[in-house]
Amino acid sequence: MTGVDLNADLGEGFGVWRLTEDDALLEIVSSANVACGFHAGDPSVLRRVTAAAAERGVAVGAQVAYRDLAGFGRRFLDVSPAELTDDVLYQIGALDAFARVAGTRVAYVKPHGALYNAIVHHAEQATAVVEAVRLFDPSLPVLGLPGSEFLRQAETAGLRPVREAFADRAYTPSGTLVSRREPGAVIHDADEVVRRCVRMAVEGVVVAVDGSEVKVEPESICLHGDTPGAVEIGRRVRAALVEAGVSVRPFTSAAAGA
Amino acid sequence: MTGVDLNADLGEGFGVWRLTEDDALLEIVSSANVACGFHAGDPSVLRRVTAAAAERGVAVGAQVAYRDLAGFGRRFLDVSPAELTDDVLYQIGALDAFARVAGTRVAYVKPHGALYNAIVHHAEQATAVVEAVRLFDPSLPVLGLPGSEFLRQAETAGLRPVREAFADRAYTPSGTLVSRREPGAVIHDADEVVRRCVRMAVEGVVVAVDGSEVKVEPESICLHGDTPGAVEIGRRVRAALVEAGVSVRPFTSAAAGA
Amino acid sequence: MTGVDLNADLGEGFGVWRLTEDDALLEIVSSANVACGFHAGDPSVLRRVTAAAAERGVAVGAQVAYRDLAGFGRRFLDVSPAELTDDVLYQIGALDAFARVAGTRVAYVKPHGALYNAIVHHAEQATAVVEAVRLFDPSLPVLGLPGSEFLRQAETAGLRPVREAFADRAYTPSGTLVSRREPGAVIHDADEVVRRCVRMAVEGVVVAVDGSEVKVEPESICLHGDTPGAVEIGRRVRAALVEAGVSVRPFTSAAAGA
Amino acid sequence: MTGVDLNADLGEGFGVWRLTEDDALLEIVSSANVACGFHAGDPSVLRRVTAAAAERGVAVGAQVAYRDLAGFGRRFLDVSPAELTDDVLYQIGALDAFARVAGTRVAYVKPHGALYNAIVHHAEQATAVVEAVRLFDPSLPVLGLPGSEFLRQAETAGLRPVREAFADRAYTPSGTLVSRREPGAVIHDADEVVRRCVRMAVEGVVVAVDGSEVKVEPESICLHGDTPGAVEIGRRVRAALVEAGVSVRPFTSAAAGA
Repeated sequence: MTGVDLNADLGEGFGVWRLTEDDALLEIVSSANVACGFHAGDPSVLRRVTAAAAERGVAVGAQVAYRDLAGFGRRFLDVSPAELTDDVLYQIGALDAFARVAGTRVAYVKPHGALYNAIVHHAEQATAVVEAVRLFDPSLPVLGLPGSEFLRQAETAGLRPVREAFADRAYTPSGTLVSRREPGAVIHDADEVVRRCVRMAVEGVVVAVDGSEVKVEPESICLHGDTPGAVEIGRRVRAALVEAGVSVRPFTSAAAGA
Repeated sequence: MTGVDLNADLGEGFGVWRLTEDDALLEIVSSANVACGFHAGDPSVLRRVTAAAAERGVAVGAQVAYRDLAGFGRRFLDVSPAELTDDVLYQIGALDAFARVAGTRVAYVKPHGALYNAIVHHAEQATAVVEAVRLFDPSLPVLGLPGSEFLRQAETAGLRPVREAFADRAYTPSGTLVSRREPGAVIHDADEVVRRCVRMAVEGVVVAVDGSEVKVEPESICLHGDTPGAVEIGRRVRAALVEAGVSVRPFTSAAAGA
Repeated sequence: MTGVDLNADLGEGFGVWRLTEDDALLEIVSSANVACGFHAGDPSVLRRVTAAAAERGVAVGAQVAYRDLAGFGRRFLDVSPAELTDDVLYQIGALDAFARVAGTRVAYVKPHGALYNAIVHHAEQATAVVEAVRLFDPSLPVLGLPGSEFLRQAETAGLRPVREAFADRAYTPSGTLVSRREPGAVIHDADEVVRRCVRMAVEGVVVAVDGSEVKVEPESICLHGDTPGAVEIGRRVRAALVEAGVSVRPFTSAAAGA
Repeated sequence: MTGVDLNADLGEGFGVWRLTEDDALLEIVSSANVACGFHAGDPSVLRRVTAAAAERGVAVGAQVAYRDLAGFGRRFLDVSPAELTDDVLYQIGALDAFARVAGTRVAYVKPHGALYNAIVHHAEQATAVVEAVRLFDPSLPVLGLPGSEFLRQAETAGLRPVREAFADRAYTPSGTLVSRREPGAVIHDADEVVRRCVRMAVEGVVVAVDGSEVKVEPESICLHGDTPGAVEIGRRVRAALVEAGVSVRPFTSAAAGA
């Protein structure tokens, strides 16, 4: 039976503030990218989300970010590689404490926001993140953009690189994402999002903006958790996958390289 | 052969700022209370200090604090017990990542500043800290003031409570510390500090402000690392202990309850 | 014609996070207590809210707080009076920059959350806040609880103390608020809230929990902005006041002492 | 009589931490670039430094920075222009509160660290800073690098651009600074620093790395306050200027454009 992982960002509140509907999303995804406190996520948020994830068998991933609460980690920060490695280690370690308390462990690492985007190309920062994961636990997979500097370096360093595709993003014929600055970069039609997810999971392809088919073969599909209607779209994606005979399960439970 | 542990606060810098002479102090102490980021200690500080401590066989302790960088954790914060437990877990986990990278683990927990003082009496916050340590790893000892609510609760919860004495603080006849608001609370004379430390380690007693002898029997003696001349006094204390036939070694290496 | 001021907390977001429905509330209140960055309120929030308030003729107040973003300023912090004065000055100054840009000025100061509650009784912190306002601009009124140490000291220092009443809080026969720990402390029935507000504005009295009438004579009535239904209740309160012939206008526009 | 301004960064501590010898430097400089809390400078630091500066007749400048305490504002942050304008306004306003309390006002604005460097070329961020100053008070001069995008735009916007030269930095023949990555970028020889300052002030020229003379004509000379020996070098520079008949006085006291 075919399987695919669904991941989303969770725990992106801080103090009194909430952003993501954590409980509802945990009924949908199989992997939770949990904010670790640098762009969002105070300790009590981490506690709640890791506990709730562990209860439901959802894998807990460390969603590591630049130290930038005011900017939600969405602004490039020219941090030195050595400091970035330490910042990432700090975040993984902090989250792992809560994962342990919940009877599980941090199961993977996914960079957030501007850091995610930077290390598609920024070789030094990519090296820094890879180094942090390798130092913490070289058996931890990393989630990233296929073809990115980050996944390339992760593989070279002996980490398991996990390719993800985006449920609601338009693709170019060469398999990269259409920039958010261009019209049509984000697909808002729920039916369309659902159809694309099923096709990505079943056939491994997505239709690019020029109508051509692009091979993406994702091990994980990223749902956006912080848009209006996110939960409803997520539910439909999950239901459609199950109906299509695709099981939704953590990529961490699949054999490495499968 | 008699032994005693020497502990001091380390890693109390942040960003460009430094406070403690970490390298010099690591030649003196056997246990390093490493700041975990909430009152001081950015990730790169944690990395450096844990690595240097591990190299020298100095035990790494999590010096957990209120979230208060501007106040250096020296101001009481009326945080709820549930949040405090989570704040402490976060800090221990973050430090443990660096301890692991350095080939060791967090070996004990010592609350810092206003939190240390609060949980001498504040039962709910004491419970919260004990709960965090127990959840993270019930085999972790905690360092605190003899007779404190914190050590009492730690023992009840099955943690190993470790009694510490202060090298440069005056004691009342009943074995509590003379308040810093009173004259003579801190002993500035280096010779006197050295003599007291040797006597505390060898005979287990200290002379109180009224001239009476008080049993303190410390498993660890706390040296202050952030006062002028701290390093020089620390060196003399260590040398005098060794000369008196007292080995300086982590309390974590001694048998529990020894 | 009778008049009363309606105030509410605004601008209590930070970065991506929002809490208060600022635009809707600005159509209701005559005085906006704008968060200044220490418990909430990043600079862009301050910019937007002060501009929107100025446009509508709503008075801009500095809602000063303990430095505690993670705790939303709701936790008592044992900050020294000297530091508290400086923290308050910093916040007023920062907000005043945006008020100036919006063509107005900070028109009053209202402490937030745990600080508000602390200085009902905490004489030293009350002095510290009064001192900050006096240093910044002794013509600035301060909003607080009638009978509080804060308003008493403000008056002594020559500041204009402004008495506020709470739209949705139960009162004891002696005119203090029923503690939130007791049942019935907060009135959730919208009709009841509306009736109380009109009576407070028109007759200056409120019915206490024992049925007796208490004189409150508020110059300003505080609406809670961060509860569900807050905007709807606020609209009804305002409409009912206007219908009862009470004009809703900033207390700052009334004659001092009126 | 010829005059020149000496400026240095001050108030770059935070909480318990200190970096700059503020009192000693205030005896040397005529303009103090005071940290405003985003890269350094808690409110009590701002209070002390502005008071001490005002007492000595030293002009108080707002040393505005990216929001980056952990990185001391030395790391480029890709903040949007709108947010940057608000961040700068917030900082100027906060400092101005303390300047008012000290009986003076913020007299100029100088960007710090990575922001200073970024807006030499980054047109959008330069616009954002200029806009903030213009909105706060269009009569405020700005201190920057001659030939920078920042000073060009400031002039166009009607602000007074103030050219500064660096006491201890090597210059290229075209008048730009030798990059810190190249050897010899910073001049460590105290005698040499003193000679260069006098020549810059008296003749308006500095000898470039190739031996050619470059016109710099600084209105202000920047002394570095955070290097070892900074205070001693500063004292010697000031004494040598006075001996050469150059008065050291705030550029803000000179006629605009002089």
